[in-house]
Amino acid sequence: MPGSTFGKYFRVTTWGESHGPALGCVVDGCPAGLPLSEADLQPYLDRRKPGTSAVTTSRKEEDLVEILSGVFEGKTTGAPISLMIRNTSQRSGDYGNLADTYRPGHADYTFDRKYGIRDYRGGGRSSGRETAARVAAGAIAMQLLNTLGISLYAGTVAIGPVRMSAEKLAACRREDFIRARENAVVMPDAEMAKEAAAYIETCRMQRDSAGGIVECRIDGVPAGLGETVFDKLDALLGQALFSIGAVKAVEIGDGVQVVGQKGSENNDPIRRKDGKTVFDSNHAGGILGGMSNGDRIVVKAHFKPTPSIYQPQDTIKKDGSETVLEIVGRHDPVVAPRAVVVVEAMCALTLADLLLANMGARIEYLRKIYADA
Amino acid sequence: MPGSTFGKYFRVTTWGESHGPALGCVVDGCPAGLPLSEADLQPYLDRRKPGTSAVTTSRKEEDLVEILSGVFEGKTTGAPISLMIRNTSQRSGDYGNLADTYRPGHADYTFDRKYGIRDYRGGGRSSGRETAARVAAGAIAMQLLNTLGISLYAGTVAIGPVRMSAEKLAACRREDFIRARENAVVMPDAEMAKEAAAYIETCRMQRDSAGGIVECRIDGVPAGLGETVFDKLDALLGQALFSIGAVKAVEIGDGVQVVGQKGSENNDPIRRKDGKTVFDSNHAGGILGGMSNGDRIVVKAHFKPTPSIYQPQDTIKKDGSETVLEIVGRHDPVVAPRAVVVVEAMCALTLADLLLANMGARIEYLRKIYADA
Amino acid sequence: MPGSTFGKYFRVTTWGESHGPALGCVVDGCPAGLPLSEADLQPYLDRRKPGTSAVTTSRKEEDLVEILSGVFEGKTTGAPISLMIRNTSQRSGDYGNLADTYRPGHADYTFDRKYGIRDYRGGGRSSGRETAARVAAGAIAMQLLNTLGISLYAGTVAIGPVRMSAEKLAACRREDFIRARENAVVMPDAEMAKEAAAYIETCRMQRDSAGGIVECRIDGVPAGLGETVFDKLDALLGQALFSIGAVKAVEIGDGVQVVGQKGSENNDPIRRKDGKTVFDSNHAGGILGGMSNGDRIVVKAHFKPTPSIYQPQDTIKKDGSETVLEIVGRHDPVVAPRAVVVVEAMCALTLADLLLANMGARIEYLRKIYADA
Amino acid sequence: MPGSTFGKYFRVTTWGESHGPALGCVVDGCPAGLPLSEADLQPYLDRRKPGTSAVTTSRKEEDLVEILSGVFEGKTTGAPISLMIRNTSQRSGDYGNLADTYRPGHADYTFDRKYGIRDYRGGGRSSGRETAARVAAGAIAMQLLNTLGISLYAGTVAIGPVRMSAEKLAACRREDFIRARENAVVMPDAEMAKEAAAYIETCRMQRDSAGGIVECRIDGVPAGLGETVFDKLDALLGQALFSIGAVKAVEIGDGVQVVGQKGSENNDPIRRKDGKTVFDSNHAGGILGGMSNGDRIVVKAHFKPTPSIYQPQDTIKKDGSETVLEIVGRHDPVVAPRAVVVVEAMCALTLADLLLANMGARIEYLRKIYADA
Repeated sequence: MPGSTFGKYFRVTTWGESHGPALGCVVDGCPAGLPLSEADLQPYLDRRKPGTSAVTTSRKEEDLVEILSGVFEGKTTGAPISLMIRNTSQRSGDYGNLADTYRPGHADYTFDRKYGIRDYRGGGRSSGRETAARVAAGAIAMQLLNTLGISLYAGTVAIGPVRMSAEKLAACRREDFIRARENAVVMPDAEMAKEAAAYIETCRMQRDSAGGIVECRIDGVPAGLGETVFDKLDALLGQALFSIGAVKAVEIGDGVQVVGQKGSENNDPIRRKDGKTVFDSNHAGGILGGMSNGDRIVVKAHFKPTPSIYQPQDTIKKDGSETVLEIVGRHDPVVAPRAVVVVEAMCALTLADLLLANMGARIEYLRKIYADA
Repeated sequence: MPGSTFGKYFRVTTWGESHGPALGCVVDGCPAGLPLSEADLQPYLDRRKPGTSAVTTSRKEEDLVEILSGVFEGKTTGAPISLMIRNTSQRSGDYGNLADTYRPGHADYTFDRKYGIRDYRGGGRSSGRETAARVAAGAIAMQLLNTLGISLYAGTVAIGPVRMSAEKLAACRREDFIRARENAVVMPDAEMAKEAAAYIETCRMQRDSAGGIVECRIDGVPAGLGETVFDKLDALLGQALFSIGAVKAVEIGDGVQVVGQKGSENNDPIRRKDGKTVFDSNHAGGILGGMSNGDRIVVKAHFKPTPSIYQPQDTIKKDGSETVLEIVGRHDPVVAPRAVVVVEAMCALTLADLLLANMGARIEYLRKIYADA
Repeated sequence: MPGSTFGKYFRVTTWGESHGPALGCVVDGCPAGLPLSEADLQPYLDRRKPGTSAVTTSRKEEDLVEILSGVFEGKTTGAPISLMIRNTSQRSGDYGNLADTYRPGHADYTFDRKYGIRDYRGGGRSSGRETAARVAAGAIAMQLLNTLGISLYAGTVAIGPVRMSAEKLAACRREDFIRARENAVVMPDAEMAKEAAAYIETCRMQRDSAGGIVECRIDGVPAGLGETVFDKLDALLGQALFSIGAVKAVEIGDGVQVVGQKGSENNDPIRRKDGKTVFDSNHAGGILGGMSNGDRIVVKAHFKPTPSIYQPQDTIKKDGSETVLEIVGRHDPVVAPRAVVVVEAMCALTLADLLLANMGARIEYLRKIYADA
Repeated sequence: MPGSTFGKYFRVTTWGESHGPALGCVVDGCPAGLPLSEADLQPYLDRRKPGTSAVTTSRKEEDLVEILSGVFEGKTTGAPISLMIRNTSQRSGDYGNLADTYRPGHADYTFDRKYGIRDYRGGGRSSGRETAARVAAGAIAMQLLNTLGISLYAGTVAIGPVRMSAEKLAACRREDFIRARENAVVMPDAEMAKEAAAYIETCRMQRDSAGGIVECRIDGVPAGLGETVFDKLDALLGQALFSIGAVKAVEIGDGVQVVGQKGSENNDPIRRKDGKTVFDSNHAGGILGGMSNGDRIVVKAHFKPTPSIYQPQDTIKKDGSETVLEIVGRHDPVVAPRAVVVVEAMCALTLADLLLANMGARIEYLRKIYADA
């Protein structure tokens, strides 16, 4: 049953397969009056585009996004916004051998078990290409966040064994993350980025692949976003990030480190400074009781190594017989760098949704809006 | 706006504050014909109950669950099932000093920022007591899973620095997890359980608290559960677990370990054995492309140390003035052991929801059900 | 699957059967800061209560509503509000003969066909008593509407052949509807109310029952409520009213009369008066393109005659054998008068939901709320 | 906030404006394995197409539907199905005068009040063209219904004062409704169809417009469809039909006639015939307690006369000044005939949704599906 929609208030529904004519999404619930054009969206898609560096696939895709509805004279109208990206570089011969053989680490087997039918061309619906539609939708959410003074940005903080230390990360500022978009692995430390790229090259030579970690930061979030109990900010970020293929762990704030901490270390003392509430530390990653506390939000997504590797692998065919698979075609040896903008998109969609959800939190908000109506 | 409902098909809505007259939930969408009585639910609530061991609070709560609707002559009728648990042991004097002071690491500050009003008695809606309602609902989900041959169980696998190794964990079987319910920390290794209890005692003496990890395993899940793209099995498990207060990281299968693995190590080879599909390893934790693959599902939730500690802490008051807070009352020095059954409940609710969601996956399923109608 | 929840933003989930221990609902999404106590709710339940006049059943029910959560120091907190009404006057012997015989015009047969099991005591979930929970939830919605200057009221405008003419209806003001609550049929014309009561008495003497029409008016609704395409104000009012048992037709504004009108008669000319937009007529019933236009909203619900009549009726038993049924017990000979407050409740819930939905309609609304955050 | 999605299980999200580049929809939740191609959808769109008879607008639209995703080798895959219809015949000059003047009876004024911005070209989002996307989605639902032996068809049963009597309607069979598609008003009585066409022509000569009634029948629906309380079959049909622009009343079964009936007349006696449950009459329109009873489902939608008429009308401009509007362009003098296929589409979508919802009604259904999994 339907699982292609994310969000309840700012709602995106994606569609499309890797080798169909196009893919896209419908964004419903975007407030009217937001300035928006294709030029606002394209830069995000360009960042996801393959073929931009040595570590990503050489497959050439244009990924030009078209706005088909919901925008009039440069502004959103409140009507659903339909976005479409044509698939222009499918080579249908590339994936033919996958029609009846299940790639280990992929969704081939589970798709067949669920639906009894599978569009095997390029991974079909489970292809990483599906995230192009999320990035396009996320770019609209980002436009909304920016308009409200919220800044959201991500980068790769680990590739295989090459990991930025807590100290290095603490020293990184927004500018470092932005600048990282220019290096091949999108890592906000130029030196380590080179190390990481070298490691990926080693994996590629070994016909193997590498994992990685993407960190996303969100500054300027008003306190109080997140809904009680099940739609907590961290819960929805958790869903958002785990919905990205290849993510196997998600951390909020100090994440897995909290287990070794004591309460006296983990609690963030609260202070008052220049008329504002501040915290001495941010172990919580900006979220308390499922709601934003006004401090920087910090999340991490852990990506497994690309399952498509160029080594012989034991697997089975659709008919149940065992076989050895040798994958051909073009595949990135690492997912994380290209996933940076996908992580940003999913976090932006989550925030946009909760900004709208929170509009009804207090009766005084309703009085404020309806006073002049 | 509303965030108190989990699930789309098997849907639970919880309500209630720590110090109100009662708390409870409504479970809507449970299939008709499932045998159910209060005796099926109470054991789960008893496992969550405080005061059962040295490491949990001595506060005495009966937590007797009542079924108010949806069950007739021992079976569910398809109507919503309303469950209620009376609050019997509130001491309203205990929390009075929290009316205007924000506890670090708690939701006090964010609640006030969101709603402008806060039921401060015992944490109100953000109290751990809210999870009693989830446990009751989860017990119904568990009844459904058991009926379909699915077995779900959890235990504590780390308390502070005391962590079960991968080897120890691999050696643990279902029986070890069940037996662990008898030890104070619910750890499926009796020796380490003693170490863990000792560590907690040390923390308590230091007026401090400890973190922990809960692992949940699910056996017998049919392949293909999980919906495309956003409602993936892992995505919904992510939401489910992060919705539990104090969870700061969630892992699926090998989790954070995947970053250091290569594709050739992380992929699980597929084989055919005795007419069934099996995997040589289970790095994936039983989930591929967001769907169950028929292997054991393994998830981990990382809990931060209890934020309520008996040391003076810097914080602010509602009026913005800085102050030093000394918390009184009864608080567990660790969250994880009592959270084991909450983790089980949330995983069971997720599975029940996806079992129902999957009923419409194929047109042949509809033909099968409506053939005789 | 779940159907017990109404609304997306202001969300009510009802539960409970006629002869269980209690029934109630959970209201999730009510804005924080709304003054609320049981005294605000009870009057609505008292209006639904049977035994208050000659035309309603003599069954005595107290219908005392308890607030179990979500209210603190006289105000809503933003947490879910749980309401419970105990069933105090069940006579379980009354309905025993219905365990295996299907009452014509009732849900007995369809319940069994859907679920394979049925709580036959007093109609179980399909009993009119279920609406007590809606009335309680609707009373909260009404409190919200009143706070924003919206006034909503309903009355009976037809009982069988006794119908108020368009002219009479046009002459009725809010006060007439309020005053009508004192007459046995809740009809805002005292003379016709007597006629209607006499007609009902005739039906009762014939061991038969009567139909009726309830009209609901809503004044002071800001223009623009209602969401595009599927969640139009009229579409959701349609769902709301048809969800009440026994409703077989719903009209908006001129309703069925529009078929005989020409466009030049049906269009409401727009004018400007004292700086406000006004309409020369209100054939539209205050709704244009699925959104409120600022004029009075007018809807009508048509109720079929009570299916429980005291005449022998042909029907079948659960085992398929034909039989003749003679219903015993206490049953109103007409549904409409007691349904007036239920219609009000469903309309109030719809409006409250759309008031919240509309909070995110414009980016300038978000700027207004988050400017100081 | 979002209102462009209908259904919870079989879910359609529409998008697009009258004068944008295209319009379309995404259908999520369609079971895998359903044979589907563009050839299955186009006939429905052709029936909605204008310019096919004297009573509809002469505007020429091709309305060619493209399937962009979710279908592979002639079958649905379980992935979202994206449908697109290009707008090929916009004459942007036609509607320019509507940028700042509100048409009476249209959504112009309310759109501006809600969103503060409006795509005025051809009615934008509120244009009747939006229903093309519904028809395309409805055609998929229809394919699903047909596969399960359900037959759904509609026709015009009244145009202005020309109304088919109850007797005539009772005599009409499915074939008459199908044949009616060939006459200009889609009325299943050839003689009356001519009368109706003549009446419309009179209205057109008077520069005026006419209302009408569309009846939809559904045969072969299994008993038990419809969810408890709020998602009743009739409640969702009510929402579905009122979501069509210009619908001002909806009737189920005998509809508004029930008010004048007595219980003894309205109840449908139940019998057993040839091993099947049958009803002596069908006043209920095939729905009892919100669930299908296995008999024919009958619903009626009442359409107001087209608000676009060629007479001078009093209205206001965006700046609040009063003015007299003379509408130009091409407009049907009646909505009902072209809305027949839209009514069919909305009813089909409702049924498809409830067929899926019902799959989880009984634990034995889950056992049946998961037994072999």
